[in-house]
Amino acid sequence: MLASKFHLHNTVFATLYFPPMATGRYAVALLILTLVSKSISRPIIQTTPEKLLKSTQPDPISDGSRVRSVTGDDSYCDSWRYSVETNDAGEWSVVPARCEEYVEEYITGGRYRFDSEMVAVDASAFAETVNVSADGMDAWVFDIDETLLCNVPYYAARGFGTEKYNETSWDEWVDLAEAPALPASLKLYKEVQQLGFTIFLLTGRDESQRNITVKNLQYAGYSNWKKLILRQESDLGKLAIVYKSERRKALEDEGYTIHGSSGDQWSDLSGFAIAALSFKLPNPMYYIA
Amino acid sequence: MLASKFHLHNTVFATLYFPPMATGRYAVALLILTLVSKSISRPIIQTTPEKLLKSTQPDPISDGSRVRSVTGDDSYCDSWRYSVETNDAGEWSVVPARCEEYVEEYITGGRYRFDSEMVAVDASAFAETVNVSADGMDAWVFDIDETLLCNVPYYAARGFGTEKYNETSWDEWVDLAEAPALPASLKLYKEVQQLGFTIFLLTGRDESQRNITVKNLQYAGYSNWKKLILRQESDLGKLAIVYKSERRKALEDEGYTIHGSSGDQWSDLSGFAIAALSFKLPNPMYYIA
Repeated sequence: MLASKFHLHNTVFATLYFPPMATGRYAVALLILTLVSKSISRPIIQTTPEKLLKSTQPDPISDGSRVRSVTGDDSYCDSWRYSVETNDAGEWSVVPARCEEYVEEYITGGRYRFDSEMVAVDASAFAETVNVSADGMDAWVFDIDETLLCNVPYYAARGFGTEKYNETSWDEWVDLAEAPALPASLKLYKEVQQLGFTIFLLTGRDESQRNITVKNLQYAGYSNWKKLILRQESDLGKLAIVYKSERRKALEDEGYTIHGSSGDQWSDLSGFAIAALSFKLPNPMYYIA
Repeated sequence: MLASKFHLHNTVFATLYFPPMATGRYAVALLILTLVSKSISRPIIQTTPEKLLKSTQPDPISDGSRVRSVTGDDSYCDSWRYSVETNDAGEWSVVPARCEEYVEEYITGGRYRFDSEMVAVDASAFAETVNVSADGMDAWVFDIDETLLCNVPYYAARGFGTEKYNETSWDEWVDLAEAPALPASLKLYKEVQQLGFTIFLLTGRDESQRNITVKNLQYAGYSNWKKLILRQESDLGKLAIVYKSERRKALEDEGYTIHGSSGDQWSDLSGFAIAALSFKLPNPMYYIA
């Protein structure tokens, strides 16, 4: 098992800023950074890791210098994100406070978009290799929140994952049904649909949120899925990894072959009855077991 | 299954440069970058992804501008590394040529070290929660190349993974037995040992390389493992994920409980008889199915 505690919230929102890369002041700064980096000599060293290990711990920032805290945090937060995306971190509750700026920059500065598009390219390349039969039994499973829909507007207003999950405000956000599509996933969705895959949507949202979820999906541009699977009464309290595995297993028992699965959580992709290939979308904002 | 093609090479080498963070010219450059980044306005937009998708494709660099190619490549390569580390990329043969500089910077500029230390911190935190019994049946499995040993010196001389695997030069490198320890892993190794775990080393190297591998491990500071498991004649040609799963299964059949597993490849950590928790070390230099 990946983790033990369950928190229900799945996801949604999008205020994305994608700067034109390599133009203007950003490019100049990167050029300076590149040139300065190149000028640093490269000694061959092997030092003991204790000191650096300490610097990777989420200690409060003790140095008042802005430069020190920014660079130290960026380094820490970049490694923190690595450990979160590879699931090395295991269960975690909120984004470390020192990483709020880093996550904001990652999400709104273009990297989130690039990463999710890279995943879509990988998934698309695989989908094209599948010999999809005409019987409709070749399936692709999509998670919804932070996979098809993007809840960044919600999380942007709540510290980009640094604040604890709040069921009330989350439900209010879901009820708005205004989460935009994650652009890369909308494109992939249409591609796999065109390739003939039968699409299943498998979400941690409750059955009571079916209508509003359908409304939001349509608002974001999604259509023609085979089935939208939501948590039933009997699923409440189950770990997402168990609930989602059980539902994939049920699809397999119905005769479907699950070729691909797209999700932003390892609990979307792990467990049993897993897809032939799974595609892990980025999400440094929250964790679901 | 994760992938289909098998290439034998496991790993090793270390010319690591770890700059003191936030000091000197590097800090000044980061400060400039930070200040300039902050000055960029943040419009709320949702553009179609096609154009950006194209920019993530490994096309030859068509723009002669150094700035453009560096920043464009960095963005592409950062997302490429995300997709590789999460296994979204699936099987891949070599590092894209345009990412050689990026990978070099990642490996030698401190991020590789930070990331691997973050993983060790995660693993250590988990190891401390395990109630290790006195019977010696609580196990931790370590891969060797790019896990315990660091072959960066070898890969640095061969384009940081942009060149195809070469068995001859690899074997020559292994015969030197001079791969240094990956510092974070050496520390973790000693910690789990002190906690009472029984340590197994499970490597894709051949039985014929046993003596030289032991020599290298000792040179790097490792000792007192329970068993060093290498590929036997019957394992040649097997996918690493199958071979390693079979060997873990054998350990389980002997009564061992595999609590933790550390490896730089998903084929070290996936398949069957997997550890209670697995820890994926970074490796953007090569892929083993």
